[in-house]
Amino acid sequence: MDEKCGVVGVSLSDRAAARPLYYALYALQHRGQESAGIITHDGFQQHSHVEMGLVGDAFDPDDIAELNGSNGIGHVRYPTAGSVDTACAQPFSVSFKSGSLGLSHNGNLVNAGALRDELAGMGHAFTSDGDTEVIAHDLARNLLDADLVTAVEETMATVHGSYSLAVMHDDRVLGLRDPQGNRPLCLGELDDGYVLASESAAIDALNGELIRDVEPGELIVLNPDGTGYESHRLTDPDNTARCFFEHVYFARPDSTVDGKLVYEARRELGRGLWAENGIDTDVVMPVPDSGRAFASGYAEAANEDGGSVEFAEGLMKNRYVGRTFIMPSQDERERAVRLKLNPIKSTVEGKTVTLIDDSIVRGTTSTQLVELLHDVGAAEVHLRIGSPPIVAPCYMGIDMASRDELIAAGKTVEEVREVIGADSLGYLSPASIADALDTAREDLCMGCVTGEYPYDIDGEETDRAVSRPVIGD
Amino acid sequence: MDEKCGVVGVSLSDRAAARPLYYALYALQHRGQESAGIITHDGFQQHSHVEMGLVGDAFDPDDIAELNGSNGIGHVRYPTAGSVDTACAQPFSVSFKSGSLGLSHNGNLVNAGALRDELAGMGHAFTSDGDTEVIAHDLARNLLDADLVTAVEETMATVHGSYSLAVMHDDRVLGLRDPQGNRPLCLGELDDGYVLASESAAIDALNGELIRDVEPGELIVLNPDGTGYESHRLTDPDNTARCFFEHVYFARPDSTVDGKLVYEARRELGRGLWAENGIDTDVVMPVPDSGRAFASGYAEAANEDGGSVEFAEGLMKNRYVGRTFIMPSQDERERAVRLKLNPIKSTVEGKTVTLIDDSIVRGTTSTQLVELLHDVGAAEVHLRIGSPPIVAPCYMGIDMASRDELIAAGKTVEEVREVIGADSLGYLSPASIADALDTAREDLCMGCVTGEYPYDIDGEETDRAVSRPVIGD
Amino acid sequence: MDEKCGVVGVSLSDRAAARPLYYALYALQHRGQESAGIITHDGFQQHSHVEMGLVGDAFDPDDIAELNGSNGIGHVRYPTAGSVDTACAQPFSVSFKSGSLGLSHNGNLVNAGALRDELAGMGHAFTSDGDTEVIAHDLARNLLDADLVTAVEETMATVHGSYSLAVMHDDRVLGLRDPQGNRPLCLGELDDGYVLASESAAIDALNGELIRDVEPGELIVLNPDGTGYESHRLTDPDNTARCFFEHVYFARPDSTVDGKLVYEARRELGRGLWAENGIDTDVVMPVPDSGRAFASGYAEAANEDGGSVEFAEGLMKNRYVGRTFIMPSQDERERAVRLKLNPIKSTVEGKTVTLIDDSIVRGTTSTQLVELLHDVGAAEVHLRIGSPPIVAPCYMGIDMASRDELIAAGKTVEEVREVIGADSLGYLSPASIADALDTAREDLCMGCVTGEYPYDIDGEETDRAVSRPVIGD
Amino acid sequence: MDEKCGVVGVSLSDRAAARPLYYALYALQHRGQESAGIITHDGFQQHSHVEMGLVGDAFDPDDIAELNGSNGIGHVRYPTAGSVDTACAQPFSVSFKSGSLGLSHNGNLVNAGALRDELAGMGHAFTSDGDTEVIAHDLARNLLDADLVTAVEETMATVHGSYSLAVMHDDRVLGLRDPQGNRPLCLGELDDGYVLASESAAIDALNGELIRDVEPGELIVLNPDGTGYESHRLTDPDNTARCFFEHVYFARPDSTVDGKLVYEARRELGRGLWAENGIDTDVVMPVPDSGRAFASGYAEAANEDGGSVEFAEGLMKNRYVGRTFIMPSQDERERAVRLKLNPIKSTVEGKTVTLIDDSIVRGTTSTQLVELLHDVGAAEVHLRIGSPPIVAPCYMGIDMASRDELIAAGKTVEEVREVIGADSLGYLSPASIADALDTAREDLCMGCVTGEYPYDIDGEETDRAVSRPVIGD
Repeated sequence: MDEKCGVVGVSLSDRAAARPLYYALYALQHRGQESAGIITHDGFQQHSHVEMGLVGDAFDPDDIAELNGSNGIGHVRYPTAGSVDTACAQPFSVSFKSGSLGLSHNGNLVNAGALRDELAGMGHAFTSDGDTEVIAHDLARNLLDADLVTAVEETMATVHGSYSLAVMHDDRVLGLRDPQGNRPLCLGELDDGYVLASESAAIDALNGELIRDVEPGELIVLNPDGTGYESHRLTDPDNTARCFFEHVYFARPDSTVDGKLVYEARRELGRGLWAENGIDTDVVMPVPDSGRAFASGYAEAANEDGGSVEFAEGLMKNRYVGRTFIMPSQDERERAVRLKLNPIKSTVEGKTVTLIDDSIVRGTTSTQLVELLHDVGAAEVHLRIGSPPIVAPCYMGIDMASRDELIAAGKTVEEVREVIGADSLGYLSPASIADALDTAREDLCMGCVTGEYPYDIDGEETDRAVSRPVIGD
Repeated sequence: MDEKCGVVGVSLSDRAAARPLYYALYALQHRGQESAGIITHDGFQQHSHVEMGLVGDAFDPDDIAELNGSNGIGHVRYPTAGSVDTACAQPFSVSFKSGSLGLSHNGNLVNAGALRDELAGMGHAFTSDGDTEVIAHDLARNLLDADLVTAVEETMATVHGSYSLAVMHDDRVLGLRDPQGNRPLCLGELDDGYVLASESAAIDALNGELIRDVEPGELIVLNPDGTGYESHRLTDPDNTARCFFEHVYFARPDSTVDGKLVYEARRELGRGLWAENGIDTDVVMPVPDSGRAFASGYAEAANEDGGSVEFAEGLMKNRYVGRTFIMPSQDERERAVRLKLNPIKSTVEGKTVTLIDDSIVRGTTSTQLVELLHDVGAAEVHLRIGSPPIVAPCYMGIDMASRDELIAAGKTVEEVREVIGADSLGYLSPASIADALDTAREDLCMGCVTGEYPYDIDGEETDRAVSRPVIGD
Repeated sequence: MDEKCGVVGVSLSDRAAARPLYYALYALQHRGQESAGIITHDGFQQHSHVEMGLVGDAFDPDDIAELNGSNGIGHVRYPTAGSVDTACAQPFSVSFKSGSLGLSHNGNLVNAGALRDELAGMGHAFTSDGDTEVIAHDLARNLLDADLVTAVEETMATVHGSYSLAVMHDDRVLGLRDPQGNRPLCLGELDDGYVLASESAAIDALNGELIRDVEPGELIVLNPDGTGYESHRLTDPDNTARCFFEHVYFARPDSTVDGKLVYEARRELGRGLWAENGIDTDVVMPVPDSGRAFASGYAEAANEDGGSVEFAEGLMKNRYVGRTFIMPSQDERERAVRLKLNPIKSTVEGKTVTLIDDSIVRGTTSTQLVELLHDVGAAEVHLRIGSPPIVAPCYMGIDMASRDELIAAGKTVEEVREVIGADSLGYLSPASIADALDTAREDLCMGCVTGEYPYDIDGEETDRAVSRPVIGD
Repeated sequence: MDEKCGVVGVSLSDRAAARPLYYALYALQHRGQESAGIITHDGFQQHSHVEMGLVGDAFDPDDIAELNGSNGIGHVRYPTAGSVDTACAQPFSVSFKSGSLGLSHNGNLVNAGALRDELAGMGHAFTSDGDTEVIAHDLARNLLDADLVTAVEETMATVHGSYSLAVMHDDRVLGLRDPQGNRPLCLGELDDGYVLASESAAIDALNGELIRDVEPGELIVLNPDGTGYESHRLTDPDNTARCFFEHVYFARPDSTVDGKLVYEARRELGRGLWAENGIDTDVVMPVPDSGRAFASGYAEAANEDGGSVEFAEGLMKNRYVGRTFIMPSQDERERAVRLKLNPIKSTVEGKTVTLIDDSIVRGTTSTQLVELLHDVGAAEVHLRIGSPPIVAPCYMGIDMASRDELIAAGKTVEEVREVIGADSLGYLSPASIADALDTAREDLCMGCVTGEYPYDIDGEETDRAVSRPVIGD
């Protein structure tokens, strides 16, 4: 499963925004490694630097020094919609009648095509395939004859889908979260200003304090002088459609998302997994690093239940296996998994093992790991997964896989277990997810595990668990 | 004096356009070294590759292989309007209601600001500062409810200034030259298609035949299957405003521009220079490489006049002094000119010398060269220049210099001579230029040497030699 | 504390050695990120590719394809002796009278200067400052009139200090470990050959089996056809001087070094830490990633003792903080630690905390972390360290720091605690280290924690715990 | 025919040597584009920077700033002996018993293999395949027990072949030219020091004055404080073996080599060509740039003879066709020549043409050019070459081609003409070469055009024109 974009915006009293934005992007790097960019505004004009690659490679000290101004936004990109090239790197910037706009976007529109056609019909020309340009053009058009808040409200009524946006209108930084709150966005306070970010860990990186999550349908407008912010609740939906995968996989363990610390959520998901599908084995071990909090909660719950399972590391992750790796040839393929994850034999040899991971998408790695553990002498390998089976694609901006690549699509759990070769396999139920996230089931988007979506999507079921206003496409 | 952009477009019967475009751009590299780009269309979609740097560095074989389609356009850029960054690299590409547009532009609009405001008032949002985006938006808007030829005609009525364009509308390649014909554009035939290019040398590079120059105000539409082309004379102006500097400096000697081989034009300019300002010296030598054809014509005319001047190389040019050169410190500055141009002593020592160059802009190099030749023992150094004194800026796309940087602005020839330190100095008259180019004086743009422009430019005189329709700004 | 070089050598029956060497270097990347190199021999000549940077960046598929031959050696470098530049990247390669030599070296000579002088007196000229060139020249000289084994024996008698070497003499791969066995080296078997490597994880990466460690003073000669190997015990020292820091920090947890799995050693060190310096707190948390195994052993021992400490992650490590990071300015310095390690508040807030790390060198990070944990609300922060105080430099190849940079040099534990600001501080004793490593105290090099060295080093004490033959310098 | 290495050395009174060396290398760039390097010495230690690529790319201002010291040497490399990789980039640097040595070498030894074996027999180990390392080791060995001048004299007695060397022994810069004076080397004076360089143009670039050529067999030792130099004539050979190709092709026209300005030499060669093989045609045109001076001398002599040939440019060279050019596919091959050299039609069309070039090696380009000129309408194309037919390889450091690639090897002039397709073909005789160079025939190396060499080379004839001491191999 792939990560997602990260957005950030800051307004400071009397300090250049570029360095704080840079450090915030560093803290959000896990959400996107394809490109990184910053736009600042110095009161007179925009300054922009956007490059392909990691934050550390995309900016040098001269680049930072040239980004003048105490207001700015930033973006790290993981490709979702739009082709993978420079034209799609963000923040996206346009000038229009009454000024300039910069947009950092996390999410995916479901009606981008229709909107683009409509704008094109009015003569608009587009330089990219991306959703973000559509939002920018629509907002620019609304700003022709409306004030900022009204224009954003009109745009929110027009664009449908998921979006958490950091927007720069001239030197004013805005934060906007879609009415369903699908992607995260939070607000924090610094000594000398305010910050909007996809995750609270970016606020921590600036030594700031998390104030709260931006609410679904809310617009936050930061004062350009860093002295405060305004809030505008532009819609008040009955239900939200928050992506439960943020807590399961995307977000950092040390971030608080929608009021819940991700590390705690994962520990509770692990406890829930024991409650639903616990099995007594000699050792409980995570697939590092994402399975660690799940495994720790699972083991703890097991031992509270009177078990005596040992929680231990059984797989060593090679931190250096990266982008520029010469892939093994077909007959060396098995070796590849050991380059990435190598067993710690004492944890595994001759033991019954519970292996814990957050999710299974294609199942390739799981299958290889189970075989590997058997090879190095595990007596039994039981696989426990901290989320339900993924059976359907994501339309909200997560590039999981197409349906026929998903190992669990159209299979029973037993059939999946057989393919993977585990001695047993257990998933976690949607209900336990909702519990662990302290969120009502109907306020979560679970399309990828139910096949029923909170948005009307051609050829897919609409989520019956929720009564939502139908959005025209 | 700086070079200018180069544009090219090809339509082939049954062969990928990318390689021919690549070779054509190589042949036009002297017109722009900042960025290089190609857009092709395969009948279904555009393919684009644009990068900063030289043609040879901007494309690798994989890039060329991915540019599918037998129709395409290309561009090499020398920065004129718009800031010097990636956003301005061309071809510029947009998609709009009824398809896609790609534009390669050589020239400069005089009413870009007003047009941009007008379009912005209709809701258009712009991603760059460049003129080209303005043309693209205007054309896209006209194409909403007009056929191609009509839409281009409307755009031609709206945009004022200089432009030679290679345009790609879906898979159709167009060539368009402004009504004054300020920038060159020509049409050629290949074995399996047609080509439009800034200079005929690019047609030669493809082993093609020059058919003719595109006429001022003419639109050429190539058949996408490479079988032919249509011509549309959209306007029929009384006078043109062709830039005489193309023959003096910009174009390659082996190109034919507006019916005149550049090498021959320069030889004739050299002959005219003898006729107007000849002086008998032991040796006539060029500033390489641009002065060579002038000097050869000058020496030839001198000898025909019964003189016995020797035509010889007196300055050796270092081909490797390039972009990534560590500049000498202030006190080493004198050395810099010898790194670039070093005297061949036997040509100079103890001799009276006529040094021939095409033009003088700031005068820095001329001053250094004259001093250098004196230093190595020249008895006298007489400077002859193959064009009139440059006294005013260019508004048509050539980034010469601002008025106060021009050595000849506000000075008599004698005053210029004194600054440069030459024993005598002679320029060529506008009349001789017109003669050498076989073009009526009133059909040439000579703003930079007369200060009177064929376009209405705020704060500048309008060319009284020509009765031209006034263009609103 | 910095990592150390990694070496590898393979001899295969009928397969190019380059790809296995590449994957083995990937598995050893943690031992050196400065440069990576491979030398192979195809029976006729050497092929070499050495570059600065990570393994993944240093080689592309063409490089690997050109490294012909089924025998070869590789190296990843962390700079120790010799300046940090290309000339020091390894393997180091020379040709001499009777063939070619390639050397991959992990370690540091104590008599390199004297040997270099001696060889220079015989006319040798050196291209680098490194120890490795000295070994190469000495071995080349010995090979002039001795067979391979004798020559290596002579060199072993001459060079003093630490060295684990993978050597390529023409197409023959050798492994050589110094008589004190200071740096690790092990031998493994593949389906179609044999492998020598710094750590067994590199053998795992090739799907091979660890045979055993190379013994101190042992020479292993692989058959060039991959069919077997010879062993030569060239010296038989009474005591060894194995570096205890391999188990504490350098080696991968999944490697078996000198017979002991590193992960298990660390768990036992953690248990020993509880036994010697245990304290009851609400939570036990590691400094990731190196403190994790210690903390897990510590917590386990605590709970076996009837405690009820919670083992939890309290610090989140940012995987992307890398080489090309723009360092915060002085007044942003505090921020830097939060970019690298950010607290997980639920683990820390309002709790008494035991923070576990493997070692303290300068103490900068420890001080920042303790302050950070107090800042986010820890009631108490108790620091426990899985090794003794580091009070003296390492002369065996580890670039720890000079004595006056070491926080513990010349300070009592209480004085160190005060600087760091922890509520209590506890280290582990050398005796417990020896226990956990199943190695006699006198067979370990503990110079950095005792200031007494197993080698005679100018101005330093010699280790009195051990009776060792004095080595002339 | 390929260029050769360039060497330089400077000693200054009180100014860093790095920048002057950098500019001198720029002036010598035509002699080698593969790598560039500078070594300086600040009185205590060497500083070195060597990189692949052009001078402008190999150094940035920081590199120059770190090259401390007022004495230093530099090198640009065109690969001759030794494989084409980093290990062969120069200056080559070694440290040995009594200090450090740096060597910049232009030339080729004929007994490198034997010397290498001999040194290897004494235990020397080599890191490269190059000749330069052999010289360095031999000199270092001689310096063990001899003073500098004696040591150099001993080395000169040992190494046979061509060499012009700039050597740095600690902070002392030496210039050394082999007894036959095969490669050029000259001495110049600066305001504040002295300079040694392959060509006088490098002295010009530093605003210095050429003093004289270094004599064959002479050693120049610069005072490290820039105040003067010593000369030592170490041998006094009867005859020299100067490479006549320096004047024909390698050197810059503005350099004075062995007392003769290259531009003048080429003009005289052109005059000789008219005298020996003149033919009356409408136009005489050079292959740019190297044929230009020949053609100008040829045309001048023709007109003095009462002819009326026009000297004109007929081929335009594209300055941008460089290293990173995507080669045309087989069926586009013909196009390649037009990308590099495009005809100026007015010079050629309907005319009888004499095309003048300096030499023919493989004949590929000549054949293409003749065909091209015919194609664009030349009535006749007569080819005149300013040197004799090249029929044998060069062993002195010029990588011409192997014998079977040489178009003239084993063919009569008429047979060559037929292959090339010219209407007539004329070469220049060795006697005319000697005349134009003001040098006795027996003092020139003409191996490549006679097949008889001034050195004993296995399987080749020794030059009978000269009685030379036989050099053992």
